[in-house]
Amino acid sequence: MRHDQIREGRLSGERNDQIAGYLSSMDADRKIAHADLLVDMAHLAMLVRQNLIGEEQAGMIARSLLKMKRNGIPQEAFDERFEDIHAGIEGELIAEAGIEAGGRLHMARSRNDEVATCLRVRSRQDLLKILDSLSMLRKVLITIAEEHTRTVMPGFTHLQHAQPTTLAHHLLAYEEAFSRDAERLSDAYRRVNRSPLGSAAFASTGFPIDRYMTADLLGFDDILGNSMDAVSARDFALEILAALTVMMTNVSRFCEELILWSSAFVRFVELDDTYCSTSSIMPQKKNPDCAEIMRGHAGSVAGAFQAVVVSVKGLPMSYNRDLQTLTPHLWRGIDDAAVSIDLLAGMIETAAFNTERMREESDRGFSTATELADTLVRDFGLPFRTAHNIVGRAVRSGEITLATLEEAGREMGGISLIERGLSGERISQALDPDMVVAAKEIPGGPAPGVIKEAILRRREALIESEKMITMHTNALHKAEEKLMTIIRRLAGE
Amino acid sequence: MRHDQIREGRLSGERNDQIAGYLSSMDADRKIAHADLLVDMAHLAMLVRQNLIGEEQAGMIARSLLKMKRNGIPQEAFDERFEDIHAGIEGELIAEAGIEAGGRLHMARSRNDEVATCLRVRSRQDLLKILDSLSMLRKVLITIAEEHTRTVMPGFTHLQHAQPTTLAHHLLAYEEAFSRDAERLSDAYRRVNRSPLGSAAFASTGFPIDRYMTADLLGFDDILGNSMDAVSARDFALEILAALTVMMTNVSRFCEELILWSSAFVRFVELDDTYCSTSSIMPQKKNPDCAEIMRGHAGSVAGAFQAVVVSVKGLPMSYNRDLQTLTPHLWRGIDDAAVSIDLLAGMIETAAFNTERMREESDRGFSTATELADTLVRDFGLPFRTAHNIVGRAVRSGEITLATLEEAGREMGGISLIERGLSGERISQALDPDMVVAAKEIPGGPAPGVIKEAILRRREALIESEKMITMHTNALHKAEEKLMTIIRRLAGE
Amino acid sequence: MRHDQIREGRLSGERNDQIAGYLSSMDADRKIAHADLLVDMAHLAMLVRQNLIGEEQAGMIARSLLKMKRNGIPQEAFDERFEDIHAGIEGELIAEAGIEAGGRLHMARSRNDEVATCLRVRSRQDLLKILDSLSMLRKVLITIAEEHTRTVMPGFTHLQHAQPTTLAHHLLAYEEAFSRDAERLSDAYRRVNRSPLGSAAFASTGFPIDRYMTADLLGFDDILGNSMDAVSARDFALEILAALTVMMTNVSRFCEELILWSSAFVRFVELDDTYCSTSSIMPQKKNPDCAEIMRGHAGSVAGAFQAVVVSVKGLPMSYNRDLQTLTPHLWRGIDDAAVSIDLLAGMIETAAFNTERMREESDRGFSTATELADTLVRDFGLPFRTAHNIVGRAVRSGEITLATLEEAGREMGGISLIERGLSGERISQALDPDMVVAAKEIPGGPAPGVIKEAILRRREALIESEKMITMHTNALHKAEEKLMTIIRRLAGE
Amino acid sequence: MRHDQIREGRLSGERNDQIAGYLSSMDADRKIAHADLLVDMAHLAMLVRQNLIGEEQAGMIARSLLKMKRNGIPQEAFDERFEDIHAGIEGELIAEAGIEAGGRLHMARSRNDEVATCLRVRSRQDLLKILDSLSMLRKVLITIAEEHTRTVMPGFTHLQHAQPTTLAHHLLAYEEAFSRDAERLSDAYRRVNRSPLGSAAFASTGFPIDRYMTADLLGFDDILGNSMDAVSARDFALEILAALTVMMTNVSRFCEELILWSSAFVRFVELDDTYCSTSSIMPQKKNPDCAEIMRGHAGSVAGAFQAVVVSVKGLPMSYNRDLQTLTPHLWRGIDDAAVSIDLLAGMIETAAFNTERMREESDRGFSTATELADTLVRDFGLPFRTAHNIVGRAVRSGEITLATLEEAGREMGGISLIERGLSGERISQALDPDMVVAAKEIPGGPAPGVIKEAILRRREALIESEKMITMHTNALHKAEEKLMTIIRRLAGE
Repeated sequence: MRHDQIREGRLSGERNDQIAGYLSSMDADRKIAHADLLVDMAHLAMLVRQNLIGEEQAGMIARSLLKMKRNGIPQEAFDERFEDIHAGIEGELIAEAGIEAGGRLHMARSRNDEVATCLRVRSRQDLLKILDSLSMLRKVLITIAEEHTRTVMPGFTHLQHAQPTTLAHHLLAYEEAFSRDAERLSDAYRRVNRSPLGSAAFASTGFPIDRYMTADLLGFDDILGNSMDAVSARDFALEILAALTVMMTNVSRFCEELILWSSAFVRFVELDDTYCSTSSIMPQKKNPDCAEIMRGHAGSVAGAFQAVVVSVKGLPMSYNRDLQTLTPHLWRGIDDAAVSIDLLAGMIETAAFNTERMREESDRGFSTATELADTLVRDFGLPFRTAHNIVGRAVRSGEITLATLEEAGREMGGISLIERGLSGERISQALDPDMVVAAKEIPGGPAPGVIKEAILRRREALIESEKMITMHTNALHKAEEKLMTIIRRLAGE
Repeated sequence: MRHDQIREGRLSGERNDQIAGYLSSMDADRKIAHADLLVDMAHLAMLVRQNLIGEEQAGMIARSLLKMKRNGIPQEAFDERFEDIHAGIEGELIAEAGIEAGGRLHMARSRNDEVATCLRVRSRQDLLKILDSLSMLRKVLITIAEEHTRTVMPGFTHLQHAQPTTLAHHLLAYEEAFSRDAERLSDAYRRVNRSPLGSAAFASTGFPIDRYMTADLLGFDDILGNSMDAVSARDFALEILAALTVMMTNVSRFCEELILWSSAFVRFVELDDTYCSTSSIMPQKKNPDCAEIMRGHAGSVAGAFQAVVVSVKGLPMSYNRDLQTLTPHLWRGIDDAAVSIDLLAGMIETAAFNTERMREESDRGFSTATELADTLVRDFGLPFRTAHNIVGRAVRSGEITLATLEEAGREMGGISLIERGLSGERISQALDPDMVVAAKEIPGGPAPGVIKEAILRRREALIESEKMITMHTNALHKAEEKLMTIIRRLAGE
Repeated sequence: MRHDQIREGRLSGERNDQIAGYLSSMDADRKIAHADLLVDMAHLAMLVRQNLIGEEQAGMIARSLLKMKRNGIPQEAFDERFEDIHAGIEGELIAEAGIEAGGRLHMARSRNDEVATCLRVRSRQDLLKILDSLSMLRKVLITIAEEHTRTVMPGFTHLQHAQPTTLAHHLLAYEEAFSRDAERLSDAYRRVNRSPLGSAAFASTGFPIDRYMTADLLGFDDILGNSMDAVSARDFALEILAALTVMMTNVSRFCEELILWSSAFVRFVELDDTYCSTSSIMPQKKNPDCAEIMRGHAGSVAGAFQAVVVSVKGLPMSYNRDLQTLTPHLWRGIDDAAVSIDLLAGMIETAAFNTERMREESDRGFSTATELADTLVRDFGLPFRTAHNIVGRAVRSGEITLATLEEAGREMGGISLIERGLSGERISQALDPDMVVAAKEIPGGPAPGVIKEAILRRREALIESEKMITMHTNALHKAEEKLMTIIRRLAGE
Repeated sequence: MRHDQIREGRLSGERNDQIAGYLSSMDADRKIAHADLLVDMAHLAMLVRQNLIGEEQAGMIARSLLKMKRNGIPQEAFDERFEDIHAGIEGELIAEAGIEAGGRLHMARSRNDEVATCLRVRSRQDLLKILDSLSMLRKVLITIAEEHTRTVMPGFTHLQHAQPTTLAHHLLAYEEAFSRDAERLSDAYRRVNRSPLGSAAFASTGFPIDRYMTADLLGFDDILGNSMDAVSARDFALEILAALTVMMTNVSRFCEELILWSSAFVRFVELDDTYCSTSSIMPQKKNPDCAEIMRGHAGSVAGAFQAVVVSVKGLPMSYNRDLQTLTPHLWRGIDDAAVSIDLLAGMIETAAFNTERMREESDRGFSTATELADTLVRDFGLPFRTAHNIVGRAVRSGEITLATLEEAGREMGGISLIERGLSGERISQALDPDMVVAAKEIPGGPAPGVIKEAILRRREALIESEKMITMHTNALHKAEEKLMTIIRRLAGE
């Protein structure tokens, strides 16, 4: 490999491979190799404008960086005997452009601010990707909901048939949850997209650099205002992982339902074969494997958050090497969450919902009894608690009929419901799932009209969210174009 | 105790105390007892306006609720044989106002939406309190920083003396971190302050209720738009605990430093006796106990988050009783974080900083050598990497002098620094901590002028933050006043 | 309250209540108040035998301690202005026996070793209780299994009907898992039951004390061999919580099944009303609340473990006040786990299993198809993979008949199964659930004969486990009797 | 790639790469590829002895397996379009030995029991490796302790100088902690080393296999007694990660001290350059990077445990695909812990302890004052609490002299210490660190004689531990030899 130019001056002794591997962050650094080139370029452009480096040397560096951006970073830059990709790329640069030129790029910065910047450049890109997948998922949910505003199905509490609702209502519950996940990730984005560059080791630098210029060229919204905080803070990583952990608990709940619904007991859904596996020994099986793995990945992301919490707990200012150990957890958490959300959209989109089975189950287990109790209140003037107890008693008898209700009425409250005008017909009406659903007309409820309005509002919210993503994405593209124009000019192209 | 009016109709058998205790959420419900009264009142006011309850019965309920608000909720309402405080208060109400009146209040709602609403009413109040404490803490940090813009101290990386900085710079690093914690909690507040009330068990209700009215009377910014989501979502609790976990990692880092600084080795700070303990066996000790407990409470809050993640993982829609088990973790996490932040402000405010010791340590361990390397770059034209290696080699020799630097220059790069004009005087200058700090004049750096500007900006940010807290607080007060006016009127006062 | 005798000499200033509450461990110390009396007594007995305290003063202390043991510790000893129960009891002692006598008991020890000893005394008692509950649970599982060795039910993988098994087989799977939980807790017991007493603050003491005597009187198996380790180690707490976390994941899995089995879809079990609740709004519901809360408590215990990990991470030697913050998590984790296991046994014992529904489902979804594939291998000489693919193809056609199998055979492997002798009768036989179960005769399998043998072995294992618990319990009782005899003698009784 | 032979029969549609990658466990399966070959061989040997496969076909399979064991498994077997390594190797086998032979190996088993077996085969090997590293670490600690039984150093509580102790005493505190970690891992080994093989999908199999024979050939101590439990239990993984998490908290505490001790403030230790790094910008730095990374890896392992807890929470019986997602966490936790323990031994062994600095600090901050208070009790008859308060008051005056003590005595207890015989000489004696340490002669204490005895006992304990490791290792080697002999014979060699 190329020589480790950093270690040379101060420390004696060569390291064995085990220790080199232990200290190296190379594996996790693959994710930021491209970001590091951008950071190098922005730093170079600024050094030139501030007259901290000559045009000729800058040109040599620019050409070398451009070459790596276009042809890919040479494999040897990723050798584990470099401690990190920053050293790897600097080594490459010095080999290519010579020490006189290449040795100047690290002026007025440190790996501490460099890595913090790269982590943010890469994280924000991943955040936008996940936000995009969340939009797609929400769109799929809304679209399917639109087709099922009258698809009656049982709703559950405690996994017991509780009251009828509609598939649209059920799917939109998840859409709302995922919209809050998108909100949280957007909020996190604002805190991620601030530049630590120029903080050097932690105390900034005596060179007259321009932190706002590098921030601008890298598409950051602002700089982090204290250089010590800038290099030692990893709360942005904790926040991302926290938001993804919450999102994955929502995913795990949805997947739990899809798995339940796929069971032979329920059969509310059939997932597309693409997302399923069969058994190596039981040929009849069709297993909802993707949904199970997604549910399991809730653990992966929660574990990543926990790992990072433990890592940073009790660290004094400013940079400590412990911070390096948190990076792989950040990437793992992001990757497992990103691919899960991405696949979830496709899995829902291709799923076949069995609306007959849903209807079949929608009045099972006295699940419309609540509406009956409400009817006793609304139309027959009973206090709610009394009506609830009467219906409950009738349920306990095993059957809801005019007779059992009348008996329960007498027993629980000394009331004759028949005398008050209750009839078999009124009971049937109150127990009909379609009628029950149609009665739930308040905002948030499942009645078809209300749900249609809800769908309109959700589409609007989704469009707002997508606008925001596009705005961020465009801002990043513009900044990169601007940066590349400068670098190409420096390179004499 | 009063009778459990909910269980009566459907289920047989009395429970033993162990099971009653296991099912009961009473202990955690003490935190929401007051919120539950407000929720009852808002619901009542709405039922009246929607003509769902008669004025006379409403009056009886209103008087009973007002009595509990003024005199406190009777102890028997907290008996563990009630499953929760909602049942406890309803039992009290029925005992006081009779089943004909009291039995009507639970109409058009369920404990599922009731508890979700109460949790949000109480959480947002706690959030505002913590935000207030964070403001106080930030104010204290800024104020002390202002006095120490020229207090030179060593900065550390890897707990090694690294470069000189100032106490102002160091304290402001934490102020920035805490300002992001405040941002996160404010962002969470927006998602917490949405009303689930009216969602009933999960499918909303057939009664023509007005969810916007109750939301308004309870000071919510909006309603949650899907009733199934509204009762089963606990992401607001996860988000609060996540934000507090991140905050407590920042607290743990600060406390670690205060403990280090209190040690006989460092003596940068002496904490006020109030926040310290002595030993039961070693009379000479003065231990930074509060700081240690705060550091330990990072565990408490992180554990609370983790508990809630595990609890909600894989739960299907909609309400499941598991959700009850997460509430105590929410309160514990909030309480441990709230009191920690509150005490931290006082602990810092009363701390005595030992500026002499700080200065004494500020050029220890060659910690100004970086500036010397930078000087070789800036004033003598060396490539950065070369300069770094030369100074590193000199350090390894044990001494930085003109002679050792010259030798290192020849050895590392075949360069004579003396020939290039380096003198002993230039070296001394570059190694003087005050000069080093003064040179760091870029935004985010420790140079006194830059820090003073930073302090102005931080004060502005703090004021913005406080305005936002006040706005929220006032909105809640106004809503409560409006609600109480209606209820007093209903009660005939 | 009584005066805080520890703070007096060294520190100035009175504390406000908030800080006193923050520093105080009183709330969690209620769990160790009784243990502290035993520790005081053992220490006293030892001081007397080592001639470190006079008989008369020892008598005064002994009388005071006996009084507290018999009448209960006075409420004022639990005042939060004492930092902990050790100070509270010492304060009580001094008030009662005077400073000349009472002030001598804390000689040759520190709160650091005192609290570490109390935590172990209490933890081991709780461990024995949980081990006892686990035994009870396992006994219930074995007893029910014994009645159901021929109760055929479907087994599931991926929540899909997979192959038939028996209820006995299914319940014994959990019994085995819980037996490993018992093993882990027993292993932990060995490490918990070692005495730190005599380690004083961490460096032991110059007084000629006898650590083996106090260890013996307190029922410890051994002393912890290094005094610094003894006071700062909390790995015993982590180990307990880790073992309980694992146990609670097993509980959560079992409860998940009970909840599934209670649903109207499955109806394999009806839990006793005692363990269920109804809804405040849906009168027909019978919810498996205890099972849900147990499942939720997996979070509580996992969170407690996590809290403790974060608390101890990175603490230097020896005692740090952070250690105090972990105690409440230890008790909470233990309590939530203990009551859960206790109730689980009762919940299973009183559950009604619906064996008809189980049989009904046992050949649903082609779940005996694996046996058919195996038959093709065993009796018709096909390679396993080929047989698997043929049956899989037939399943895909929607029906397993001689015709579909024959067609699949030709298509997949160019084989005529009819020519090889396959008949409709052979197919029916292979698909009969009873036959399938009866064929699984290898150790660990569900065939009735094999299961009966397994039950015998499990009963033996259970008896071994119970013997061990009894042995530990008796040893503790004996030690306490011995201790009380000495103390009563010292008290002059 | 070779064809995925499992999917063929039942499911339609080809998967895209993203889904294939999502479902594939290949990355984590590299760790068990070799184990899988052993499991295949043991299964084959058993099938032959039970006459379930013909000699000729067995020979073809044996030759193919031997080839892979010797030459390495072909790269294509690791293609991600195979779901796992089991399918990959089976694909290879069928390609090599033909479907007629190769297609028979999967008879009477399932990937469910296969993977569970492989995980245990690999885990136990890793456990033995870590146990070995722990032995090495403990040996290093004991050896260094032996050289430093008279090296006086300050001991700390709350990071305050507390009482003098010795380096031997301090290092042995960690040795004891690590010995308990070794105990826990050994206990876990007993539960890991049980064979699930033969459980097939979960219901065992109708083929007359011999589970004890495969268990024996694979070196297992026993079989898991219930086939459903055997395939769905992952408590062994949780237990391993829990034990490693506890171990890593101990590592994090030790590393925290090494980092503190390396600081310019303390300078108790200089770590070898091999384990340190310098800065990319601050040439004077020598950072204890390995110790920091180790401290950080406490997070990695704790996060792995947490991930697995979340993954398995609430999973019903028996196998669910979620279980696949926990495997990478198991390997990551094991790997990060294993390399950390391995490097820690070397880092300690090569560290240079600065005994002069230790002595210098050993009576700083009144840290021998406790002994003085004890002297007042022992030799002057004061009650402990009184003596403690007197010395505390003297300390507060800033100086411990005969005069300040006398004044404190009068003030606190109305006692004249001079009258009781206290002299300046007695005070000096009591305050001398060497005397203080020498007085701590009870078991567990730091007095040189006591420590030497402790070292003997620790060496014995270590030898016991090493014997146990050797016994396990030899048993595994023997089993593998026996297995290979059979396979070579089958292959006709």
